[in-house]
Amino acid sequence: MRMALGLQYDGGSYSGWQSQAKQKTVQGELENALVKFIGIDNHGRDPVRVITAGRTDAGVHALGQVVHFDTSVKRESFSWVRGVNCYLPSSIVVNWAQPVTSEFSARFSASERTYLYALYAGPSRSPMADGRAGYLMLPGDRWFDVEAMKHAAKYLIGEHDFTSFRSSECQSKTPVKTIYSIEIFADQPWLYFKIRGNAFLHHMVRNLVGSFLQIGLGKQTTQWMQTLLLAKDRSLAAPTFSPAGLYLVKVAYPEEFNIPQPYLANSWLPKYLL
Amino acid sequence: MRMALGLQYDGGSYSGWQSQAKQKTVQGELENALVKFIGIDNHGRDPVRVITAGRTDAGVHALGQVVHFDTSVKRESFSWVRGVNCYLPSSIVVNWAQPVTSEFSARFSASERTYLYALYAGPSRSPMADGRAGYLMLPGDRWFDVEAMKHAAKYLIGEHDFTSFRSSECQSKTPVKTIYSIEIFADQPWLYFKIRGNAFLHHMVRNLVGSFLQIGLGKQTTQWMQTLLLAKDRSLAAPTFSPAGLYLVKVAYPEEFNIPQPYLANSWLPKYLL
Repeated sequence: MRMALGLQYDGGSYSGWQSQAKQKTVQGELENALVKFIGIDNHGRDPVRVITAGRTDAGVHALGQVVHFDTSVKRESFSWVRGVNCYLPSSIVVNWAQPVTSEFSARFSASERTYLYALYAGPSRSPMADGRAGYLMLPGDRWFDVEAMKHAAKYLIGEHDFTSFRSSECQSKTPVKTIYSIEIFADQPWLYFKIRGNAFLHHMVRNLVGSFLQIGLGKQTTQWMQTLLLAKDRSLAAPTFSPAGLYLVKVAYPEEFNIPQPYLANSWLPKYLL
Repeated sequence: MRMALGLQYDGGSYSGWQSQAKQKTVQGELENALVKFIGIDNHGRDPVRVITAGRTDAGVHALGQVVHFDTSVKRESFSWVRGVNCYLPSSIVVNWAQPVTSEFSARFSASERTYLYALYAGPSRSPMADGRAGYLMLPGDRWFDVEAMKHAAKYLIGEHDFTSFRSSECQSKTPVKTIYSIEIFADQPWLYFKIRGNAFLHHMVRNLVGSFLQIGLGKQTTQWMQTLLLAKDRSLAAPTFSPAGLYLVKVAYPEEFNIPQPYLANSWLPKYLL
């Protein structure tokens, strides 16, 4: 049978999602925990392989990650949650487990993904935000031109070729993605970007955030965002911004799959963002 | 001359404040950074010794710690801040530096200390709150009797002998301390305790929090808090609660010393608490 799980993790101590030899990854930790939980019931089969909605990068966090895997083992949903959590480190947690039909794919059935970027911009570093938010040194009397960034965001809404914001390591078949909305929330010394789209290229959100900040700091005009988009040239956009502030908040699926909403109340992020 | 510094730190990776042989401590990191910053100007004297307002325990955080030290080196305030920060790890930051008179002691001049305890209580662990808040497993449909805890808090206000909430390792000369206020904020799944007093015994806030939770969960009556206080017996109160949720938020001094307010906006804690 096929099971879906809802996950949260602090990506700070992992080399990203995807299993790699000799690297500590979220996928590796989860698959190990699943094998331990399934134990001798696994009939000596291959290790469990999980498929994820979003292969987050090193240092990137998830509040509403969704995965699926196939297993011959039947357990109650609460038993999957409690049991697998027993074998996971404190930086990863399973929030829910649910049987799904074999048509469901955590990756290919996903219709929408929401990312949130949290930035702290102040005169000195913030130890409690270290690893949980991006940081930009900014004197206490300086702040971003938020309206300019909001204006620039409008150029990105809709279906576009996002080559200018794509990492050279991106494995996506196409650079054409659809952004449904970009919301920017400013609460000095905090700045938040909430981006909803059908899918994202490798480093796309972090490259967009870097470019927004150039505009917010007055180093580029709002029109620069359109110029970047149309140029389809990665060398023009701003450098990739820190992974520490990036959160995969939510993955949406067609209603027929009846996938639970992510549990977001345990996040440190302000409630109005979630 | 005597200098005062305002500090923040994530206590998660330290064996507390106080320097100990072979242990990583906040004091040790700060004194090392000061010596490196002062460099050859130190005239070969003894290493810098800092005196702190509150010797926080292992795992306990500070948003508004204050320290002082004596030095023959004269630098601009901004130079102390930037320079010392260059030699500090990302888990510790100096927010301000200011020359003070020799009458000032970060420890003995302090008239008031404010601690905040952040607790997450939900059905599963929170990776992003791990090490930054206490955790109590609580089903999603259960919550605390907040009014009962607020009522119990009233018994503690004022000058009392807090022996029942004192660790056996406490070095304070007297168990008699004055609590000025205890505020309890509930925002499910978060619970916050804000406690203001002239000074605190070792483990006192964490022991109080543990006892409040017994009342909040209905395992003890509100009057139990008074019984505990009057008994002057540590064996009766609840076990010491986790250090991960404890923050030294603010230390107050008489106005004549002109000590800056702590910089709290960079905390992840909700603004209404700060």
